[in-house]
Amino acid sequence: MTTPLRGVIPPVVTPLTAAGDIDVASFERSINRMIDAGVDGLFTLGSSGEVAFSTDARRREIIETVLRIVAGRVPVLVGCIDTETNRVIEHAKAAKELGADAIVITAPFYALGGTAEVERHFRLVHAAVPDLPLFAYDIPVCVHTKLPGDMLVRLGLDGVLAGVKDSSNDDVAFRFLVDDNNKAGHPLTLLTGQEVVVDGAYMAGADGSVPGLANVEATGYVRMWQAYERGDWSAVRAEQDKLAALMRIVTSTSGVAGFGAGVGAFKTAMALLGVFSTNQMPEPVLPLKGANVEAVAAVLTECGLELARTPEEVSASTEA
Amino acid sequence: MTTPLRGVIPPVVTPLTAAGDIDVASFERSINRMIDAGVDGLFTLGSSGEVAFSTDARRREIIETVLRIVAGRVPVLVGCIDTETNRVIEHAKAAKELGADAIVITAPFYALGGTAEVERHFRLVHAAVPDLPLFAYDIPVCVHTKLPGDMLVRLGLDGVLAGVKDSSNDDVAFRFLVDDNNKAGHPLTLLTGQEVVVDGAYMAGADGSVPGLANVEATGYVRMWQAYERGDWSAVRAEQDKLAALMRIVTSTSGVAGFGAGVGAFKTAMALLGVFSTNQMPEPVLPLKGANVEAVAAVLTECGLELARTPEEVSASTEA
Amino acid sequence: MTTPLRGVIPPVVTPLTAAGDIDVASFERSINRMIDAGVDGLFTLGSSGEVAFSTDARRREIIETVLRIVAGRVPVLVGCIDTETNRVIEHAKAAKELGADAIVITAPFYALGGTAEVERHFRLVHAAVPDLPLFAYDIPVCVHTKLPGDMLVRLGLDGVLAGVKDSSNDDVAFRFLVDDNNKAGHPLTLLTGQEVVVDGAYMAGADGSVPGLANVEATGYVRMWQAYERGDWSAVRAEQDKLAALMRIVTSTSGVAGFGAGVGAFKTAMALLGVFSTNQMPEPVLPLKGANVEAVAAVLTECGLELARTPEEVSASTEA
Amino acid sequence: MTTPLRGVIPPVVTPLTAAGDIDVASFERSINRMIDAGVDGLFTLGSSGEVAFSTDARRREIIETVLRIVAGRVPVLVGCIDTETNRVIEHAKAAKELGADAIVITAPFYALGGTAEVERHFRLVHAAVPDLPLFAYDIPVCVHTKLPGDMLVRLGLDGVLAGVKDSSNDDVAFRFLVDDNNKAGHPLTLLTGQEVVVDGAYMAGADGSVPGLANVEATGYVRMWQAYERGDWSAVRAEQDKLAALMRIVTSTSGVAGFGAGVGAFKTAMALLGVFSTNQMPEPVLPLKGANVEAVAAVLTECGLELARTPEEVSASTEA
Repeated sequence: MTTPLRGVIPPVVTPLTAAGDIDVASFERSINRMIDAGVDGLFTLGSSGEVAFSTDARRREIIETVLRIVAGRVPVLVGCIDTETNRVIEHAKAAKELGADAIVITAPFYALGGTAEVERHFRLVHAAVPDLPLFAYDIPVCVHTKLPGDMLVRLGLDGVLAGVKDSSNDDVAFRFLVDDNNKAGHPLTLLTGQEVVVDGAYMAGADGSVPGLANVEATGYVRMWQAYERGDWSAVRAEQDKLAALMRIVTSTSGVAGFGAGVGAFKTAMALLGVFSTNQMPEPVLPLKGANVEAVAAVLTECGLELARTPEEVSASTEA
Repeated sequence: MTTPLRGVIPPVVTPLTAAGDIDVASFERSINRMIDAGVDGLFTLGSSGEVAFSTDARRREIIETVLRIVAGRVPVLVGCIDTETNRVIEHAKAAKELGADAIVITAPFYALGGTAEVERHFRLVHAAVPDLPLFAYDIPVCVHTKLPGDMLVRLGLDGVLAGVKDSSNDDVAFRFLVDDNNKAGHPLTLLTGQEVVVDGAYMAGADGSVPGLANVEATGYVRMWQAYERGDWSAVRAEQDKLAALMRIVTSTSGVAGFGAGVGAFKTAMALLGVFSTNQMPEPVLPLKGANVEAVAAVLTECGLELARTPEEVSASTEA
Repeated sequence: MTTPLRGVIPPVVTPLTAAGDIDVASFERSINRMIDAGVDGLFTLGSSGEVAFSTDARRREIIETVLRIVAGRVPVLVGCIDTETNRVIEHAKAAKELGADAIVITAPFYALGGTAEVERHFRLVHAAVPDLPLFAYDIPVCVHTKLPGDMLVRLGLDGVLAGVKDSSNDDVAFRFLVDDNNKAGHPLTLLTGQEVVVDGAYMAGADGSVPGLANVEATGYVRMWQAYERGDWSAVRAEQDKLAALMRIVTSTSGVAGFGAGVGAFKTAMALLGVFSTNQMPEPVLPLKGANVEAVAAVLTECGLELARTPEEVSASTEA
Repeated sequence: MTTPLRGVIPPVVTPLTAAGDIDVASFERSINRMIDAGVDGLFTLGSSGEVAFSTDARRREIIETVLRIVAGRVPVLVGCIDTETNRVIEHAKAAKELGADAIVITAPFYALGGTAEVERHFRLVHAAVPDLPLFAYDIPVCVHTKLPGDMLVRLGLDGVLAGVKDSSNDDVAFRFLVDDNNKAGHPLTLLTGQEVVVDGAYMAGADGSVPGLANVEATGYVRMWQAYERGDWSAVRAEQDKLAALMRIVTSTSGVAGFGAGVGAFKTAMALLGVFSTNQMPEPVLPLKGANVEAVAAVLTECGLELARTPEEVSASTEA
């Protein structure tokens, strides 16, 4: 990764077989489909890539599979998510050994401390894999710490951080971060994790986006990025409106919450579109079934996407 | 108010004398300045208008003063903020009697219940003042309830709500609300309470904005709105960038938090600009002093605004 | 109130008629029943006394009614709950004028600031009614601020606070507060607002309790206090166990939350016991009905209390 | 572990050398000291045992070291804390293979879902190690989910859970849980994770306690348990009061927060008492130094504990 990363870098959703194994054929279809759509990179083992659900062996398998499929066509960022420093360093070293182009880590979680410890955490991980570009993953909904903008810019200036993936849903803080980063000479690549207000993040000056929904529909995000690059804001807005409508798959279901609702809807959509063989979820989460699959299918159809399989087929793709 | 409200409707900051009384001369300067800048309405007794700090008599005095100064030049929305239904209805009736064009109320607070009670609250207040347009004020940071989009649209369709002032800082929910409102035939006027990501809210399709910072600099928000109306997104973005830089007045201080930092910075800026005579705050909040006033002044100067008074003069405008 | 308050001081639940007016006859039955049971004081217009739901006129009516019924038999504390300082001072002056023995106030709410402002708030209210004993009401679930123990003891030593009603549900902080208060010479009367772990609060050294459940069953709390006073911990525990079983009325219902579930169950129990004429709730809260009334009745019966009215009669005591 | 666990089961704090390795000699001193004091079991790799900071290899080393030192004198519970089901199962199998007497797991964290998934998580882990007693660890401050009492009792009745370690700091919920467990025939062993309100938990009917402070002073907790067993509540209270005073070590410091303040104070106290060689902390947490070590020493001295080393010696036991 010689030049700074820019553009659309989807977090890669991990396809499973009904038995819960990695579904390599589906993985190939999905990754090739995103690269063909023109994405600028891929982020594997993010929150939606089920990093928290995957054992170390499974994480290694996912990294190897993704890198083999991508085969250098785009850079691959690898999530090294774990509770505290030494555990994260182990993942970082494994990612480096396997060939990651960059890694992405969160603030420590489970046992919280103060801001000084969060900063020390990033510095220690960077020191352990100094030649691997390091992205901070700002995701308070999962780790219950919001990364302060001044710390991020300082870590950028010190060469610790290469960039930030902002999934904080705090667009005010993001705009101030973009501004501070520009004032500091743009040491950080700033990527938004938003999906339905990416246009606003581009208005704020984001360097790119990491939208989970791009697994379902990458071409729209690529077109939005290209419109942004050429300053065509009406096109940016029109693309975002269409993608916001599609994002309703994650609010269309009932009786499910959190990861099961969000990634559950992504996997279900991709199974309906024929990209994934099943909508299987990692334990202890159950796949969507019945009326929830139909609800996802209805949103896809409303948005003009053609279903390759019926809701019944997708519901039957995993056990009860 | 015969036509739907649109555009820039600043929440009016309330000027106080050093003794803590309403400062009518400053109020006139400030309101006339905003109307001259071309705002489309004014919202008095919002959170930044110190509604929570004002006794009933003070609220009445503020409403009367604002309505007298405005003299029908723009519509005036009045905040009727209180803990539960019957207290809110008293404020609503007073606002109606005094001549408010519309009122703005939050979900109940202090004693929380469920969603059904929140909806009933809006219906009961509307029933008490049925001919006064009612806006829902979605401000979870103050009332600890997020108003659900489906409830808001339902209340719009039923003629209970005329609109929503969204201060939830949840831009994803806001975009979905805009979309649902459009699908329902646009029963609600949707105003964003954002200040530094108003461009994003316009991208989402907001009908207007209610930025507290417009007390300090209304012309920029008016120009941003006009640019939005004519589809000139580059101009929207440029105006927002300048206003975001100015908004740093609220993060420039230290040792203060919440209302004292936010509205404290607004009042200090307006005293530095010569619009307000003092930067006095309502009890138990103390006005900014010394280095904090200097910090606000530095931001104003950096943004190209000319100071009418020195930081020392503003610090001396209230007692220690 | 010449001597420090000690013992059981129930927060008085406010009975309403089906039309929503104050039900004076029920009020007399309930207050006399608690005084006859041997309570050491009464706290009117607390959170469960529906202070947040009551207009100023209603608050005045409640204070007058309670003081007239009590007629000096026990001291009466009056809640002066409102958003910020000047509004609270108005309530404090009214309470003083009406003859309150002491007042109870929370930290400011709606517009939050820092700790310095919370301390200033208590000092300003005390300065406005300097001869009226002032209790701090620590209730973060309603006001979203936890009062720091060191501030409370400092305000006690300075003669600002006479005591604390602790409804923070933070028993660790309460034990440290008791300890700090003792080290400082016991300037504060420390009352727990707990209901089912009052025994623990007594172990910690509380000076008394303010249990809402005492509206339903005061004699048990009085016996527990007397057992504590004579050091009979087995009796303390046995009484607490019985009262904890009775407290299940507030968890026995479904489809209701917060104030409607808690005070709703208290009012329903008192209606079933024949103390209250109705279980009417203040708007926008609806009274319990049907299966929820039956659930409360079942708990009462299981705990050996005799019902004066059937669930059907109580459900019929208010409109649908 | 043939009989239900009861009594005092301290969570074992992990001693480190200045270089960050396991300090086996200190471990032996500490564990033997607790067993000699009469504890009824030990819980290794709990939150204060730095489970979240330990790599898999380190976890294995800790388990082996503890089991070797304990040598069957008391049962050893092992924390198998990780984000989601399959990762937890790996730890559970390792603990079983190494000889744990029971394991302790939390709700899933990082990626949250609904209650159904939490219950499924416990069932799946139990199914993977069916003959190993499984304790639920209710610690919302770390995992941001509160375990519902009815689920816990149901899992107890179904043979999934052997007990609960309650670190929720919700004493009301704990009392209801004890009561529900008794009504169900006492399927669960209920242990409180409290330190300064253990007397209240015993009043509520706890089957034992898991106090981190017992690493510093186990004899007091053992005496408190024995007093509880013989019904001597005055002695229970007196012991708790002394231990509450000692617990002030964790609030005596400044500039540190969370794990660094809590476990940092425990380790510092043990270094001052000569049990641990250093007060080293796991990365990214720094050990207490200087004035903070002196503050801990002052509390120990005030509580009558004799220091084996000076604060300066302890500050010098790790690098700057």
